[in-house]
Amino acid sequence: MTEERSTRPPAPSDLLPDLTTEQLRALHQIGRQWDRVAGESEEWRRALPVDPNVGSYPARHQVRQPRYERFVTVSELGADPRTTLASETPGEASTPAGRAGYRLRRVLLGPALKSTALVRERMRKLVALPVLSSDALSSVAYGPEAMLTILVIAGVAGLSLSLPIALMIMLMMLVVGLSYRQTIRAYPNGGGSYIVARHNLGPTPGLLAAGGLIVDYVLTVAVSIVAGIAAITSALPALSGATVPLGLGVMALLLAGNLRGVRQAGILFAVPSYVFVFSVGAVIVVGLVDAALRGFPPAPTTQVNATTGVTLFLILRAFTSGATALTGIEAITNAVPAFEPVEWRNARTALTWVVLTLLALFGGLMALILVTGTVPAPGQTVLSQLARHSFGTGAMYVLVQASTAAILLLAANTAYNDFPRVLSLLARDHYAPRGFMRMGDRLAYSNGILLLSVAAALIFVSFGGDTTSLIPLYAVGVFLAFTLSQAGMVVHWWRSRARHWRKSLAFNAAGAVMCAAVFVTAAIVKFSAGAWVALLAVAVFVTVAVRVRVHYDTVGRALRLRPHAASAPGGPISVVRRPPDEGAHTMAGSSRAGRTSDREAEETPEEIHHLSVVPVETLDLANIRALAYAASLRQPVLAVHLSPSEEEAERMRGYWLQWGDHLPLEVVVCPYRTIIAPLVNYVEALHEQRSDLTITVILAEVVPLRWWHRLLHDRMAFRLRHALRERPKIVVTTVPFHV
Amino acid sequence: MTEERSTRPPAPSDLLPDLTTEQLRALHQIGRQWDRVAGESEEWRRALPVDPNVGSYPARHQVRQPRYERFVTVSELGADPRTTLASETPGEASTPAGRAGYRLRRVLLGPALKSTALVRERMRKLVALPVLSSDALSSVAYGPEAMLTILVIAGVAGLSLSLPIALMIMLMMLVVGLSYRQTIRAYPNGGGSYIVARHNLGPTPGLLAAGGLIVDYVLTVAVSIVAGIAAITSALPALSGATVPLGLGVMALLLAGNLRGVRQAGILFAVPSYVFVFSVGAVIVVGLVDAALRGFPPAPTTQVNATTGVTLFLILRAFTSGATALTGIEAITNAVPAFEPVEWRNARTALTWVVLTLLALFGGLMALILVTGTVPAPGQTVLSQLARHSFGTGAMYVLVQASTAAILLLAANTAYNDFPRVLSLLARDHYAPRGFMRMGDRLAYSNGILLLSVAAALIFVSFGGDTTSLIPLYAVGVFLAFTLSQAGMVVHWWRSRARHWRKSLAFNAAGAVMCAAVFVTAAIVKFSAGAWVALLAVAVFVTVAVRVRVHYDTVGRALRLRPHAASAPGGPISVVRRPPDEGAHTMAGSSRAGRTSDREAEETPEEIHHLSVVPVETLDLANIRALAYAASLRQPVLAVHLSPSEEEAERMRGYWLQWGDHLPLEVVVCPYRTIIAPLVNYVEALHEQRSDLTITVILAEVVPLRWWHRLLHDRMAFRLRHALRERPKIVVTTVPFHV
Repeated sequence: MTEERSTRPPAPSDLLPDLTTEQLRALHQIGRQWDRVAGESEEWRRALPVDPNVGSYPARHQVRQPRYERFVTVSELGADPRTTLASETPGEASTPAGRAGYRLRRVLLGPALKSTALVRERMRKLVALPVLSSDALSSVAYGPEAMLTILVIAGVAGLSLSLPIALMIMLMMLVVGLSYRQTIRAYPNGGGSYIVARHNLGPTPGLLAAGGLIVDYVLTVAVSIVAGIAAITSALPALSGATVPLGLGVMALLLAGNLRGVRQAGILFAVPSYVFVFSVGAVIVVGLVDAALRGFPPAPTTQVNATTGVTLFLILRAFTSGATALTGIEAITNAVPAFEPVEWRNARTALTWVVLTLLALFGGLMALILVTGTVPAPGQTVLSQLARHSFGTGAMYVLVQASTAAILLLAANTAYNDFPRVLSLLARDHYAPRGFMRMGDRLAYSNGILLLSVAAALIFVSFGGDTTSLIPLYAVGVFLAFTLSQAGMVVHWWRSRARHWRKSLAFNAAGAVMCAAVFVTAAIVKFSAGAWVALLAVAVFVTVAVRVRVHYDTVGRALRLRPHAASAPGGPISVVRRPPDEGAHTMAGSSRAGRTSDREAEETPEEIHHLSVVPVETLDLANIRALAYAASLRQPVLAVHLSPSEEEAERMRGYWLQWGDHLPLEVVVCPYRTIIAPLVNYVEALHEQRSDLTITVILAEVVPLRWWHRLLHDRMAFRLRHALRERPKIVVTTVPFHV
Repeated sequence: MTEERSTRPPAPSDLLPDLTTEQLRALHQIGRQWDRVAGESEEWRRALPVDPNVGSYPARHQVRQPRYERFVTVSELGADPRTTLASETPGEASTPAGRAGYRLRRVLLGPALKSTALVRERMRKLVALPVLSSDALSSVAYGPEAMLTILVIAGVAGLSLSLPIALMIMLMMLVVGLSYRQTIRAYPNGGGSYIVARHNLGPTPGLLAAGGLIVDYVLTVAVSIVAGIAAITSALPALSGATVPLGLGVMALLLAGNLRGVRQAGILFAVPSYVFVFSVGAVIVVGLVDAALRGFPPAPTTQVNATTGVTLFLILRAFTSGATALTGIEAITNAVPAFEPVEWRNARTALTWVVLTLLALFGGLMALILVTGTVPAPGQTVLSQLARHSFGTGAMYVLVQASTAAILLLAANTAYNDFPRVLSLLARDHYAPRGFMRMGDRLAYSNGILLLSVAAALIFVSFGGDTTSLIPLYAVGVFLAFTLSQAGMVVHWWRSRARHWRKSLAFNAAGAVMCAAVFVTAAIVKFSAGAWVALLAVAVFVTVAVRVRVHYDTVGRALRLRPHAASAPGGPISVVRRPPDEGAHTMAGSSRAGRTSDREAEETPEEIHHLSVVPVETLDLANIRALAYAASLRQPVLAVHLSPSEEEAERMRGYWLQWGDHLPLEVVVCPYRTIIAPLVNYVEALHEQRSDLTITVILAEVVPLRWWHRLLHDRMAFRLRHALRERPKIVVTTVPFHV
């Protein structure tokens, strides 16, 4: 796998695994085996009773096709006569419910998109900046508050520490920002934490980073929505009772929007970020100027009751809570290819701007908090208090709150973009179910989007839409991913020795050390407050991912092409063409001796020895059709009747003779009245006699029209299929009969 | 259907429907069609690569069969060489969970029983009497109380009416008893309400009676258990909080016991009834003698506050509530064949005894109630109060309460015997799903038993284990069934004019009129108190039963054997043997013209035209095996690859050529990335070209070992099978590949 391919998101064509040279050779060899034994009968194989290329079928327009016409339109261009082009199609819409679902999907999501609609959009810096920075910038809406919420426990003494802690966090922003500048240069195709960690540190650190990201994205959605709703309820306290339904509504909107395939780019997405930066900037400037004009009066002594003293533990908790303001800072490193050329240079510039804006907003807000003596209050966010302090409750206040809510929503949307992408990368590396690699109708990774929605909604509801209890979970995952990503970069520079590698290595090392420190601190001081949940989630994720990988590897090995050894003397063809009078027993004996393996190995068509078993419940039209189908294959057929009593068995034999006894019938009396198990065991017993046989169990299945009618039938076919699917070399065929 | 067969419970062999003479003729004709077209290839059809009679297979003991040995033991007796006898088998126990379930079933239910173990036990009157009368006799435990509970609302004035009402109820007992004596004589094979009503009044009255019975049985279980637990909690008030869990525990016990196939007969079941009769009799005698010795002092004026006056409505409510004491009186008419010869005579005698005992107990209890002035009290049943009055709280009191609880349990058990039997009769008449006719491991109608348990548990829990709210539901169903049964008997006597028909008709008419009066009264006066639930349940039952019958009739008609018209000139054989170079288009044309019907009619093997379609996802071992399987059938094969992109399509074609291009490949590009719908539509499009083709879609299915591994695969085979099963003449074959 080339580096280029392994870092870009999976394309639809990645679903077909590439065959290695060795596998191609195996394939070729298998083909020659088929050639050898099948040569003389090659001709009939190419004869088809229909034109497979339905597109160029001349009588096409004459074929009555009132019902399916709109589903299969075929390539009229005739670009490649072997290719038929499927139209947009209504899923498995054979049932009314299925069709209704299809229509609903089209209404909600719009028409399905072709894979060729997948283009990489390029963004100018002025657009890319707000779009990619919403996650990072929005953190200032809850970061300072999260920090103060901890400090206020220690009263005035605690709050006095907010300045040094804030300075520390700003230093971290600077270092992490500089560190990520190096990543952008090294991974111009986009260097998410998972990719960087896996490339440089190996699979397990990669999975740990991915686990951190996965947890992070789920929490980003939950926290951003909680904070966004807090911004709204601060302005409209009447809504504060409806936090949970509001949040779920927003999630449903995000889900629908992202399944629809909302593109990140677009002025629509840029506006809220600019408005947010502008309005929060105005809050800061107005507030500070106001204070300056009044000669920086000492902050009014706020009534806070210290419930605990200032401890190192408390300081560290406040620091790690405030450090959530760093989340989202890595977004640009994922999206380097979205910039205009020279991509990495533009991305770096954008990152610098984002970090500077973040520093300004965070620093400004902290300064204003100190000057005004604001402390967290129930029912109103700190940012809302500051905005009220600067502007009262006028239009500007509403603008601040609205833009805060909007940018937080965008931050959640960022997670909706990144979470499925990470999962698709994991799926391509066989660490996640393949379904996450599949793009839906609208070219979005629908399964990942759905999973994120479900997980975030569960978290959101079970925490009752409360930010303070979610924040402790948050920092851990983010800083785990940060740490591994930076550490990966250190290794990268050490190995590559590219230009300026020493300087880059130094920056990344500083970032790694600081992030590691925050991660370890957060994991320890917030362990009992909720960090254990995040750590456990990461651990579970890594375990599951590894198990998934092991399974896929097992399946891959089992499915690998490996031509089997040459057949026994006498050749398989003579076995197929044996005269019917030759005894079955000797056949079984010689065949068992002649074949080396009875496993489900590769076989040429002529090596497959058939026996069709038709369970006949009674002689009605459905069963007669199944018998006719079986007989028409011109392979040995055995009808089996399972009879609950000797009396019924006799009756069945009478019917059989009446019919003409065209096929051999075996009656199995089942005195215990169960049908499935005796039949399975009987088929097994037949298989024991000649394990090289491929036994095809041909089932007549009555298919009623309505779903509830199915309750009235005994689902024999379904249960038999289920019971037989575990057994090797037993093929199940269902001959439907529609009522 | 003979009368004998239509009245006895269904035997296992009833599952195979009898073919009528006309159907046998059709079968014979179909056989001759097969003869005509298949004559010359008859020989290969009898050749089998295995010995179908695994029992007499000589190398049997040499076959390694370590895993299944205990499951298939075969008839060594060789009674009929065409018959193989299945052993007791572990259901679909191919999975660990399935095997565990099988073992659990064997532990709970005991070993499976052969159908031949189904013997009709004969009971002496002395055993039959208590066993069959438990339902009827147990009603005195709640009947009087139900009546008093209503009357007490009207205070002393209300209670004074209890004597005339009780006398009225006793008169009814007498009349209904005499009426059922006639039924026993006319239906010596057992004449339940459903059978009598259906035979004499027609299907709809039969269904109404069955509906009444069904509702009755469900309520009998609920009411009997509620009353039985009330008997226990009256003695042990500490348990009164645990009514619901206790009741559910008892239901679980009844469920397990009945699935195990508890036989009604047996001294064990006779004892509680005798003890109950004896102990309640003692309560009455001691109480009355005590009162007589004291010169029948006037009953102490009980403190009851009349909350309403005495109205006709109240009287009727009290009467219909008290009439629940009649429930269960019909049990003997169902069980006539269980008596020793002369069955009907012994059954009649037993019925007389039961009615007399019932009269004595009911009358005695009412007398004692009047003498002692007992009124319903919370936390203690009336019977418990009377027992305390007669015996204090000593051993005799405990005996009364224990035997009451025991007989009520037995009454519930009666419903467990009768409910599944009625359902099995309904199933045989195609009014209920066939599954209710099937006997489980232990020769009990397991499905009916399960349904009863679920329904009774739901009722029990949703009414919170309270008798008074359940009683209004109760009378309606019982008396509906009684009325229809008696009315049916009137018609029976009118038609048959058997010996003493006038007398019998008179008795039955009197019973019918009285029961009808109670039914109508109960339906009106208790409508809003809960009778509407019972009426609605009966109506829903009848509707569903009729719909079920209509569906089975439709299916039966569709499946009926009807040989199709002789084939078109030229014969079908020439079609099968067409040279491969003959154009598909002309074929399609001529074929469509030549055949009259493309529906799923009866076809001879030679008339079936095959096309196998193999969806090939990628070229791995599973798919190569599916291709080999398809090719080995030596019918036209078309491989179809559904490709999400043109690029991948090209890659696939490369692999195909590498393999040797042994079969025609059609690549369908699915720009919308869905696979199922394009494939279904493609198969449909092929079918449109030649609708006489039977298209077999051959799917390679990777079957993982563990259930959770299945989440990691896309269940393509399952979904495709589901999508294709609606389409006519499309056969789905699954070639498994085990990992």
